[in-house]
Amino acid sequence: MALTYKQAGVDVNAGDELVERIKPLARATRIAEVLDDVGGFASLVAVPGGIEDPVMVSGTDGVGTKLKVAISSGFHDTIGFDLVGMCVNDVITTGARPLFFLDYFATGKLDVTVAERVVAGIAKACKEAGCALVGGETAELPGMYQGGDYDLAGFSVGIVARKKIVDGKRVTAGSVAIALPSSGLHSNGYSLARRVIYDTMKLEDGARPPELGGMTVAEALLTPTRLYPRAVKCVQDANIDILAMSHITGGGLPGNVPRVLPEGLGLKIDHAPARAPIFELIQHGGPVEPAEMWHAFNCGVGFVFVVAKADVDTTMRALEAAGEAPFVLGHVIPMDLSTPFEARVVLP
Amino acid sequence: MALTYKQAGVDVNAGDELVERIKPLARATRIAEVLDDVGGFASLVAVPGGIEDPVMVSGTDGVGTKLKVAISSGFHDTIGFDLVGMCVNDVITTGARPLFFLDYFATGKLDVTVAERVVAGIAKACKEAGCALVGGETAELPGMYQGGDYDLAGFSVGIVARKKIVDGKRVTAGSVAIALPSSGLHSNGYSLARRVIYDTMKLEDGARPPELGGMTVAEALLTPTRLYPRAVKCVQDANIDILAMSHITGGGLPGNVPRVLPEGLGLKIDHAPARAPIFELIQHGGPVEPAEMWHAFNCGVGFVFVVAKADVDTTMRALEAAGEAPFVLGHVIPMDLSTPFEARVVLP
Repeated sequence: MALTYKQAGVDVNAGDELVERIKPLARATRIAEVLDDVGGFASLVAVPGGIEDPVMVSGTDGVGTKLKVAISSGFHDTIGFDLVGMCVNDVITTGARPLFFLDYFATGKLDVTVAERVVAGIAKACKEAGCALVGGETAELPGMYQGGDYDLAGFSVGIVARKKIVDGKRVTAGSVAIALPSSGLHSNGYSLARRVIYDTMKLEDGARPPELGGMTVAEALLTPTRLYPRAVKCVQDANIDILAMSHITGGGLPGNVPRVLPEGLGLKIDHAPARAPIFELIQHGGPVEPAEMWHAFNCGVGFVFVVAKADVDTTMRALEAAGEAPFVLGHVIPMDLSTPFEARVVLP
Repeated sequence: MALTYKQAGVDVNAGDELVERIKPLARATRIAEVLDDVGGFASLVAVPGGIEDPVMVSGTDGVGTKLKVAISSGFHDTIGFDLVGMCVNDVITTGARPLFFLDYFATGKLDVTVAERVVAGIAKACKEAGCALVGGETAELPGMYQGGDYDLAGFSVGIVARKKIVDGKRVTAGSVAIALPSSGLHSNGYSLARRVIYDTMKLEDGARPPELGGMTVAEALLTPTRLYPRAVKCVQDANIDILAMSHITGGGLPGNVPRVLPEGLGLKIDHAPARAPIFELIQHGGPVEPAEMWHAFNCGVGFVFVVAKADVDTTMRALEAAGEAPFVLGHVIPMDLSTPFEARVVLP
């Protein structure tokens, strides 16, 4: 009997069905710049008018082994939201406005319902971030992924006027770091978190350990990554001179804040931020040393603005008016040039 | 004993080492528009000057289970080249000039040497395509990928003046399709190809079946995807009015040419194109029906231009002057509106 493509494990019809289900989700994220009457092979988005010397800002990311929690718990509705957060929160650190997003979804055998739920999460976050979901690739790779496993990658592009790029170069000693809370682990540190919670503590997804205050393990672990584009826009719209922005991802505050500080400067954290209960559960359940916690997790901080001391009050007010709960995290201090990268954040 | 992130399976140092090894590879792909003094969280590329009403054109893709051949044969040097080809050949179908590329590399346990070889292939293709490798994400996902498995996704962005977008809308009956040869399977149809070659024919990567004329199975299967940006640029530079372009990927000619033809038109293929020996091996080894071959593989055609009949000679000459081996594939014919999508290509 002659072989067909479907017999080799690739179901083109499932892919087509998914495309049909995704269309209305993507359409809901449309922005004015999208040229959607040009079909075919690629996605077209006009460079917005009125931006002097426009610069495209791009970022790509995944969600790490947070995927494993979504897959094992069967809750696929917010992992796509995380994916957008990981990419878009990076792009906006430059001062850029997010414009569009594309995703890559790979699995062994396409489950249209699961993929649709993942993409629905992507579309929801795109809408909240004001960026259009313009394309994606769904790859069926028989033999590469086990069972219901899938991987996800995201790609986002934003735009900024060259003169408005935020690059950290004007940060000085005395500049102040204002933080926005994270909602939980966001999308980093899950290999360690899963090891502690599932292996060491032997908790299951449905368990409700008292430390989590009524939430299940899966709910706490899958709390979606917060999106910060609206908060950044509020500060920009208030004409505040943002000196630097940092998205707190893998490596925590010590791994991320120094990425936008000039040489010879560091950040002294004045107070330990409040953290979601999941952090306590992991720290005590491991146990994980406090220093290791800071380097593996965001420990309560999702995003950091650095502004001049004179701008602290207006920044706080702009963020509060936007419904955020900002707090002063610390201040910038001089630091020996030989200080190792991650030691440039002085922990409380 | 307290747990650390590394004990949980994530080796941050290996990631850092890879970043250092990738830097010179990426630097070699730099184009004038890259703003590389802005570090941090995202990649910045200026919109090139002199483009009226610029439109960003983006595409994302993977390389399917061609990955499995690279992994099983241990030859990781060209799969990255394929990845760039899959993305960039899509982007240029709109008339856009490719500008930049980002990759996502995911694996269970990072092997820095393997990842470096993959990225070297990406960088080589980026250089040939004239687009800058500006960023990427390396994800270590313990428990998601088996052994030395890895997955790859690529993202590319190009730019085109709005008035110069090639969208197929002016294609008419009588327009002519000019094809550029593929080098082999490119990066589609590998689930079927692997099933035939490894499972049905029981050939190993090192086997040299007579049909392949001296090549090994792995060499034939891993022949890199051809890049078409230079060919397209030559036709554009000759001021030829390109009506449509099609990149022949999954679904072959029937699955891809109709994506850029107006309603009510189809393509009649006048002669079966020459094909690399790997196609014969698969067709006879399966056996795979000829019709299934056309729908699963590119069958010798990597890229298609559609031009007016009056422009055929100048297009052929421009492509030949660029070192290509173009051939007339067929011509556009009227077709009933009710014709199913893939039946709009009339096979020889």
